[in-house]
Amino acid sequence: MPKIIVEVMPKADLLDPQGKAVANALQRGGNKDIKGVRIGKRIELHFDRPITDADLADARKIGDEFLSNAVIEDVVNVTVEN
Amino acid sequence: MPKIIVEVMPKADLLDPQGKAVANALQRGGNKDIKGVRIGKRIELHFDRPITDADLADARKIGDEFLSNAVIEDVVNVTVEN
Repeated sequence: MPKIIVEVMPKADLLDPQGKAVANALQRGGNKDIKGVRIGKRIELHFDRPITDADLADARKIGDEFLSNAVIEDVVNVTVEN
Repeated sequence: MPKIIVEVMPKADLLDPQGKAVANALQRGGNKDIKGVRIGKRIELHFDRPITDADLADARKIGDEFLSNAVIEDVVNVTVEN
């Protein structure tokens, strides 16, 4: 199925308590080389037809304005998977 | 910073109420061509040294056993970003 994938992450200078908790648990479990963890969102937009450049432009707009909160999050990737 | 990115999505045959709500909102907003939305997680594991094949193997294991719940989720991608 054609889809556009929008990836959203908490801003780098922002605390991510969920990621911090996972990093602590991994380190307790012996994964000493993992220095940090950040947890964001991976959002798939599904289409029932091939994806056009206009769809991708729309998806970028939706990502910035609707799927993410620009105060605390960045859209790090918008990709097409046809 | 070198990182491994683990992408986790709800299984295809599982309801995703959050994704459904977003899809409904997008359709109300005029994006009629978006037929469905699924929302998963994008998890970054950070390293302070270059990532090895062993790290990647570890990350796949961590993804399957710790970062996702195999009953309801699939790890769809594990990628290195050096």
